[in-house]
Amino acid sequence: MKKIFFVFIFLPLFNFAQTTVDDSLFIHKIAVDILSSDAAYNNLFYLTKKIGGRLSGSTNMYKAEQWGKKVLTETGADNVIMQECLVPHWIRGGTDKTFITYKNEKGQQQRYDLNVLALGNSEGSGPKGVTAPVVRVNNFDDLEAKKNELKGKIVFYNVSFDDTIINTFQTYGKNVIYRSIGASRAAKYGAIGMMMRSMSNTPGNFPHTGSMHYLDSIKKIPAVAMGLDDVKKLNALLDKNISLTATIITNGKMLPDTIAHNVIGVLTGSEHPEQIITIGGHLDSWDPAEGANDDGTGIVQTIEILRVFKALHYQPKHTIHFVFFANEENGTRGGIKYAEAAKLNNEQHIFALESDAGGFTPRGFGFECNDVVWEKINSWRPLFTPYYGDRFQRGGDGADIGYLREIFGTITAGLMPDSQRYFFIHHAPSDVFENVDIREMKLGAINMAALIYLIDKYGL
Amino acid sequence: MKKIFFVFIFLPLFNFAQTTVDDSLFIHKIAVDILSSDAAYNNLFYLTKKIGGRLSGSTNMYKAEQWGKKVLTETGADNVIMQECLVPHWIRGGTDKTFITYKNEKGQQQRYDLNVLALGNSEGSGPKGVTAPVVRVNNFDDLEAKKNELKGKIVFYNVSFDDTIINTFQTYGKNVIYRSIGASRAAKYGAIGMMMRSMSNTPGNFPHTGSMHYLDSIKKIPAVAMGLDDVKKLNALLDKNISLTATIITNGKMLPDTIAHNVIGVLTGSEHPEQIITIGGHLDSWDPAEGANDDGTGIVQTIEILRVFKALHYQPKHTIHFVFFANEENGTRGGIKYAEAAKLNNEQHIFALESDAGGFTPRGFGFECNDVVWEKINSWRPLFTPYYGDRFQRGGDGADIGYLREIFGTITAGLMPDSQRYFFIHHAPSDVFENVDIREMKLGAINMAALIYLIDKYGL
Repeated sequence: MKKIFFVFIFLPLFNFAQTTVDDSLFIHKIAVDILSSDAAYNNLFYLTKKIGGRLSGSTNMYKAEQWGKKVLTETGADNVIMQECLVPHWIRGGTDKTFITYKNEKGQQQRYDLNVLALGNSEGSGPKGVTAPVVRVNNFDDLEAKKNELKGKIVFYNVSFDDTIINTFQTYGKNVIYRSIGASRAAKYGAIGMMMRSMSNTPGNFPHTGSMHYLDSIKKIPAVAMGLDDVKKLNALLDKNISLTATIITNGKMLPDTIAHNVIGVLTGSEHPEQIITIGGHLDSWDPAEGANDDGTGIVQTIEILRVFKALHYQPKHTIHFVFFANEENGTRGGIKYAEAAKLNNEQHIFALESDAGGFTPRGFGFECNDVVWEKINSWRPLFTPYYGDRFQRGGDGADIGYLREIFGTITAGLMPDSQRYFFIHHAPSDVFENVDIREMKLGAINMAALIYLIDKYGL
Repeated sequence: MKKIFFVFIFLPLFNFAQTTVDDSLFIHKIAVDILSSDAAYNNLFYLTKKIGGRLSGSTNMYKAEQWGKKVLTETGADNVIMQECLVPHWIRGGTDKTFITYKNEKGQQQRYDLNVLALGNSEGSGPKGVTAPVVRVNNFDDLEAKKNELKGKIVFYNVSFDDTIINTFQTYGKNVIYRSIGASRAAKYGAIGMMMRSMSNTPGNFPHTGSMHYLDSIKKIPAVAMGLDDVKKLNALLDKNISLTATIITNGKMLPDTIAHNVIGVLTGSEHPEQIITIGGHLDSWDPAEGANDDGTGIVQTIEILRVFKALHYQPKHTIHFVFFANEENGTRGGIKYAEAAKLNNEQHIFALESDAGGFTPRGFGFECNDVVWEKINSWRPLFTPYYGDRFQRGGDGADIGYLREIFGTITAGLMPDSQRYFFIHHAPSDVFENVDIREMKLGAINMAALIYLIDKYGL
C-alpha cells in the first residue's frame, strides 16, 4: 500500500460566534427542566397506551387529534388550529396470513406459516387468497431477467439491508423502492402476488409494514412483508431448489379519502409575528403497534419544546407553530396541506424542524440550507456538545416539512438520533412504548429546543 | 442577565497528523468485517443464554472460563493463559424477600411485598428475617441527624439519581457510596437492617444489586435494594406519616475465597514482543440475569478485535493481550492479579483498553494519559468520526485496568458508549441478551479495534 501522509487542514468552523454565555446557561435550564419533568413520559404513555396505533382514517386518529388539541392547549399554546385536510383511508381489514407448502425430502407435504403483514395501501387478496409457486428475485435486474417466468406466480423480493452501511437510513433509502413499487413491477409481468423481506436489519421475526403504491393500469396484487427469521427459512428451502407454493391471504382495502387535521399549536412572536418557525412530528402511525418511536416521540418532543418555553417564560420573537402532521405514513397529505395553506395565506416560513427518526439518543441534526446559513448554524455547535447533539451535517430534514422547502425555500432540519435501533421498531409490532428510552427521547427534545431557541433569537 | 459576548478560540487539535489514507481504509475494512460477521451475535448469545449469570465462584463462572479459553483459541490467539487468582465466593443462598406491614386509613393491617435483591457480599438475615420499624433517610447527613432513632430499626436510604446530569455514570459515581457502606453506617447506630432505592434512574420496578462491604467491627446487617416503583409506594406511605414495619429475609453468605482465572489470549508482537497492549472486559457478572451488557458485550468486543485482526491478516507489532478479567463485580481481584503478576514478571505494559460501560452505541473514549500522548491520540479523532466514536475525553478507563495504571503508569482508556440506558440494566434482571442491540455493540468493537490498530502501529 502506498503511504500518503497528509495534513489535516482544520477549517475554522466559526470566526466570531454570536452566541453568549447566557445562551449556554439558558440551554442548560432547558435541559434541567426537561430532564426533571414527567410530562414527556406521561404524554408518550397516553398517546401509545391509551390511544395506540393511529392510522389515517382510523378511530384512533380522531382520538389522537382531540388529545393533541387538548395537550397543546393545556401546555400553553396561544391558540390551536385544527387544519382540515383529506387523507387516504386504508384499512387492513383483518389478519394477514401467508403460508408456504412444499414436499420435504421424504416426499411428505409440509406447511409453514410465515409471520407477515400486508403492505400499507395494498389491496387484499380476498378470503380465499392467492396461491402460486414462488419465484425469488434479488433485485429489479433479477426480476427483469426472470420476467418470462413470472406469469401466475408469486414474486419473493429477497432484498437485504446492507449491514456494512453505518447509518441505517441510507440502506433503507436504497431499498425502499422494492416496498413502494415492487408489487406493480412484478404484476406487470403477470405475477399474482408479492412477498418481500421486511425492511429491517435486526435479528428476529417481526414483519415490518409500510407504504406502497400501485402503478397506473397495472393489476393490483396482494403484497406482504415477512419477518427475517422466516426469510431465512424460505431462503434455506429455495437454496435447496425445493419448489414451493405460497398462499397469501390479505384483506386490505383503500376507502375514499377522509377528513383529518393537522393540529397546530401557535405561540405568537413578539417581534416578528409574521415570520413562522415550524416544529413538528407526525401524529399518524401504522396499525400493528403503538407508533411509539414512529412518531410518538416526535410528537412528544414537539410538546416538550412548547412546555419548556412556557416553563422558562421564554417569549419567542418569531411565531412558532408546533405541528402534529396528520398523515405522513401513507401519503404525506398533512405536510402537503400545511405548505399549500401557507402559500395560499402568503405566510412567511423561515425555518422548520422535524423529528421523525425515532426517539433514540441524539447525534445531531441534518440541515437543508445554503452555505451562509450553514456557517452560521455550524458556529452554534459547541453549545450542543454537552447534550450530545453536536453532529451537524448538510442534508436531511423530514417528509412533512420538505414541502415548505420546496414551495418557499424554507430552511429545514431534521433531528438525527442514533440510527442503529430504528429498523428494529420501524412499522413493526415492536414499535411500542417499552422500546422508547425516555431519557434518550428527552435528550433529543433538549437539542431541538436549543436549536429553536437559537434560531428564534438570532434569526437565519 | 449580563451579556458577555465571547469569541470561541478554536485550538488546533493536531498540527501534523501522522495517520495515512491507508489507516482510514484499514479501519473501513475493520468496520465492514465486523458488521458482516455473525460471530459477535453468536458469542454473546452463547455467553448469556447458554451459560448465563456467572458470579465469581459459581459453577457458571467455571463454564465461562472454559468457554473463554476455547473461543480465544479458536479465534486465533497464539496461546491462551489461564492466570489463577483467588476471588470472593459470595452466594445469594435463596430468594430475597422484603415486605412492609402497616395499618391503612380504616385501621386494617396491610402487607405489601417489595421487589428486592440482597446486595452482593451482604450477610443473610437467616430464614426468620429481621423485622423492625422503618426510618427513612435521604443521605448520610440525614442519617447522622437521626442517629439516636436508629437502634433496632431498619434504615431506608432514599437516595435518588440526579436526573439532570446528562452522563448517568456521574450520578452513579456520586451515589454508589450508599450501596457500598450504607449498611455499616446504619448498623453503627444500631440499625438491624438496611433497604435502599436501587441505583437506577429508569421507570419500572427492577431491583438492582451490586457490591457492598461491611466496615470492620461493625455488625453485619442484611441489606437489600428495591425496585423504583416500590420506592414510590413506600415513600407515599411515609409521606403520609404512616408508621410501618419492614421484614427483610435474605440468605447471602460469604464463603472462603475460591480459585478463578483471568483468561488471557495472546497475540505475540512482531517488532516489540516485550511491549504489551491489553484489551479486555470482565467475565464475571451478577446473578439475577445474564450479564449481557455488564459485561458480556465487553467480552464479545474483545473477541471481535482478535477475530478481525486475524481475518484481515493484521500482524501486530506489539504483543496484544485479550483479557477476560476474572472478578470485577465484587472485588476486582482479576485486575489486581493481572497487574501484580505483570509487576512480578517485569512486563512492559504500554496501553490498556477496557469496555465495561455496556454495549450501547459508542460516543468515544476516555483516556488516562499525559498531555503529549493526549495530543497524539486526539489527532486521530477524525478517523473515528464515520463510526460515531470520535468523542474523546480526558479521564475514565475501567476498574480492571486501573491497577496497571497505578503500578506501571500505563496509559489506559475506556470505551464510552452512550450512557442513557445503562442503569436500566445494571445489575438487574433486565441485563439480558434481548436488551443488547447487536449493531450498537459492534460499532463499539469497530472503534476499539481502530484505536488498538493505531496505537499498535504508531506507538504512544
